[in-house]
Amino acid sequence: MKKTGEIARFIGGQLVGDDAIEIKGASGLKEAKKGDISFIIHEKFSPLLGMTKASCVVVPLTAKPCAKTVIRVADPSVSFSKAVDFIFPDRIPHPKGIHPTAVIEAKARIGANCGIGPYVVVRDGVSICDDTVIYPFCYIGKNARLGNSCIIYPGVTIREEVSLGNRVIIHPGAIIGGDGFGYDLAKGIFLKIPQIGTVVVEDDVEIGSNVTIDRARFSRTVIGAGTKIDNLVQVAHNVTIGRNCVVVAQSGISGSTKLGNGVMLGGQAGLVHHIELADGVKVGAQSGVLKSFLEKDTVLWGTPAKPIRLAKRLNASTALLPKLYARLNLLEKKIRALEKKK
Amino acid sequence: MKKTGEIARFIGGQLVGDDAIEIKGASGLKEAKKGDISFIIHEKFSPLLGMTKASCVVVPLTAKPCAKTVIRVADPSVSFSKAVDFIFPDRIPHPKGIHPTAVIEAKARIGANCGIGPYVVVRDGVSICDDTVIYPFCYIGKNARLGNSCIIYPGVTIREEVSLGNRVIIHPGAIIGGDGFGYDLAKGIFLKIPQIGTVVVEDDVEIGSNVTIDRARFSRTVIGAGTKIDNLVQVAHNVTIGRNCVVVAQSGISGSTKLGNGVMLGGQAGLVHHIELADGVKVGAQSGVLKSFLEKDTVLWGTPAKPIRLAKRLNASTALLPKLYARLNLLEKKIRALEKKK
Amino acid sequence: MKKTGEIARFIGGQLVGDDAIEIKGASGLKEAKKGDISFIIHEKFSPLLGMTKASCVVVPLTAKPCAKTVIRVADPSVSFSKAVDFIFPDRIPHPKGIHPTAVIEAKARIGANCGIGPYVVVRDGVSICDDTVIYPFCYIGKNARLGNSCIIYPGVTIREEVSLGNRVIIHPGAIIGGDGFGYDLAKGIFLKIPQIGTVVVEDDVEIGSNVTIDRARFSRTVIGAGTKIDNLVQVAHNVTIGRNCVVVAQSGISGSTKLGNGVMLGGQAGLVHHIELADGVKVGAQSGVLKSFLEKDTVLWGTPAKPIRLAKRLNASTALLPKLYARLNLLEKKIRALEKKK
Repeated sequence: MKKTGEIARFIGGQLVGDDAIEIKGASGLKEAKKGDISFIIHEKFSPLLGMTKASCVVVPLTAKPCAKTVIRVADPSVSFSKAVDFIFPDRIPHPKGIHPTAVIEAKARIGANCGIGPYVVVRDGVSICDDTVIYPFCYIGKNARLGNSCIIYPGVTIREEVSLGNRVIIHPGAIIGGDGFGYDLAKGIFLKIPQIGTVVVEDDVEIGSNVTIDRARFSRTVIGAGTKIDNLVQVAHNVTIGRNCVVVAQSGISGSTKLGNGVMLGGQAGLVHHIELADGVKVGAQSGVLKSFLEKDTVLWGTPAKPIRLAKRLNASTALLPKLYARLNLLEKKIRALEKKK
Repeated sequence: MKKTGEIARFIGGQLVGDDAIEIKGASGLKEAKKGDISFIIHEKFSPLLGMTKASCVVVPLTAKPCAKTVIRVADPSVSFSKAVDFIFPDRIPHPKGIHPTAVIEAKARIGANCGIGPYVVVRDGVSICDDTVIYPFCYIGKNARLGNSCIIYPGVTIREEVSLGNRVIIHPGAIIGGDGFGYDLAKGIFLKIPQIGTVVVEDDVEIGSNVTIDRARFSRTVIGAGTKIDNLVQVAHNVTIGRNCVVVAQSGISGSTKLGNGVMLGGQAGLVHHIELADGVKVGAQSGVLKSFLEKDTVLWGTPAKPIRLAKRLNASTALLPKLYARLNLLEKKIRALEKKK
Repeated sequence: MKKTGEIARFIGGQLVGDDAIEIKGASGLKEAKKGDISFIIHEKFSPLLGMTKASCVVVPLTAKPCAKTVIRVADPSVSFSKAVDFIFPDRIPHPKGIHPTAVIEAKARIGANCGIGPYVVVRDGVSICDDTVIYPFCYIGKNARLGNSCIIYPGVTIREEVSLGNRVIIHPGAIIGGDGFGYDLAKGIFLKIPQIGTVVVEDDVEIGSNVTIDRARFSRTVIGAGTKIDNLVQVAHNVTIGRNCVVVAQSGISGSTKLGNGVMLGGQAGLVHHIELADGVKVGAQSGVLKSFLEKDTVLWGTPAKPIRLAKRLNASTALLPKLYARLNLLEKKIRALEKKK
């Protein structure tokens, strides 16, 4: 519990109103109760301030004056998130200390202030830096390296030699460093190709629940710094994802494909192998990208994916097909008439 | 092992034939062996009764008389399922009692007659009602609430504050209450938006293997009573699914989207965020729904999803395109001929 | 570490050059360092031999002579894989022995030389044959049978009665034998249909991370010998997959569908229920197969999937639609002109 004045100071905002209200919860404007803090992202929502039960609202600098206690800031959504972390520092009950049931092999090194929950297995040669938290049922394979302040939720498998940067968050059930899917076909039989590379996950990456990221055949599969991956995404071996990309749920990236920085993939999108998308390319949901797009910031849609203007034009053309058939029928009739007249 | 007479009484059917046959197995008509019970769902399958090796068959009231021992019931499939549960009450070897290796924190409450397997972690403040079964490697986060008679298969993660109703079944590897996928973009960097809501799963819901259901940003993601979710489905934050919906494997529902009651999503279907489907809407497999459909019982297909009559018409139009080009070529030729004659 | 001469002998190749080089690593040609072994799959890549830092390269019999130490073989990729396994026999740090924390119920039988990691649960009646390895957090249900030399990675659930052949590899988080998705609709309520069949996984199958394979309603879901399944694939109840099939990531196969031998499904492909694909059928990525294709080796693409020549023709026709409209507009104009002249 924090007071409105403390919160305003912490997020660097300007308090207008009562600085001594005790804040007990945080919520959206509609659902908010007395004692909650809430926010609006734009001054146009100012009229809603009269209707919310929230005791304090984080508002943009441009918001109109009102009777409600508000905190004025440049970016209300970002500041509200900071406020939430300030008011509820232990909101998520991470494991603390090293639980006696954790199996930590002799040559593993655990940094200061880590939380290792019950039933975690940490193999030899693993290095875990300070302030990292690992939930139950995680497997950390031989020689894996985890940076500072990572959060590894339950049931995550990080196989041998995988490397995570700092502040990486991995949600439950994600699998990092499974074997890539590679076989030689010899006389009708598939022979497994050893996958002797690894996966490198850079700083500030977040990986969703039940995501699968395969290790490279050689060298590395790379997830660039700041990239966010949603649930149930597949990243095949030797993929390179740039920095600050957003990969929405259930999309899949085939082997050796390369995404630049700031690329966005919509949900259930699929990319074939060995292609490249330039920085800032955006791929619509369910699209299937079958070739490289090397021009920055191209927006793609459809299967096969095309620049969105073209894709929408084709889509509109298709939607008009029944009318087109009608026009064609009429033309044929008219021509028959013209031909008869000769 | 139960006798045919007992079974008939239990399922409320009318036995015709021998009431003392010992039933040792249950099977489809084709695969059935001597000693098995089987069923047919319609009288038109009556001829097959002569060919099955099953010792007893559950049949509809309208089935023709035959030499085989049968049990006549109004709904053979439902009655057969009841019979299976009656004959093999311990068919699935659920854990019984509380295994000594389960880590149950001090302030958790476990109801009567629960089965908590080895290597389960139950955090403080959790409440588990009577007759609920939890398999190994499940994580039940702080303050989560599980109703009566739930079955939680291995490796399920239920994060803090999540609430399950009664008779909820969760298959292995499902993740309930992972963080929603939300970020603020500030100067090219994605900042995590705290996801401080939860997930409410109502009574009689079944959730498939490796499903992911994210917690709300605020308030709740809701799965309505009686809804059945197949494997590998993604349910994003703040989604509301109504009662008695069916969500087939690998489909995905984006943030804040709302399904009415009795909605059905085909496999690999995708719904964009912030849309609404009315009660009884059916979405075909692999369809991509890009806008709300507010008329009840609409059947949708394709990407972008359209009412199925329109979608099929467009699909048929597209399939005829090569012929259309041929017709157009012919017309152009004829017109050239007409123009020359002038 | 092995010497080039030993490696050549082991893989049955012809060494040309120095037989005493110590090989410390294996890599692609580009990434290779001094002390590495590498390979080229075709003589056309011979010019690259001058540029690699690899100390030894596995080459095809037809490769041109060069200054580099090479091993000549008939199939370089296959031979290189063999070499990797020879040089690094313990590359993957599988568990060895039976860890004291493994919970192995009294009536389970474990073969010779198995590796059972910490926190594995093996229920009564399970039979595990020799040389099989099971990683932490795996659950092996009652009466399940695992063959020789299987590798079961962390967090795999194998439910009761499931049977695996020899040399089966299952990647982390895969769920084998979850309940099939089957309900009877009675008065608007879905009643669960007991799924009393099982899953049979034959020899030499590999199953990717977080794959879900459901048990049959009756009898068995079957994965044929030598079949390889990529990550996040869904296999529904009563599916039969033939031998030596390849099922790429995130594809889904609906209930009771049957694949012949040597079938290939591209990523995110979907197959409806109760259809059949003949031996050697290939389905393109993201395709939706809505009916059976019984002609061998048919290549399918699109939704609804069609033989690829037809699918590509339709796709090309669609891409030309804007031009078609232009042609049609012109025709209509010309006809108006012709009509006026009368």
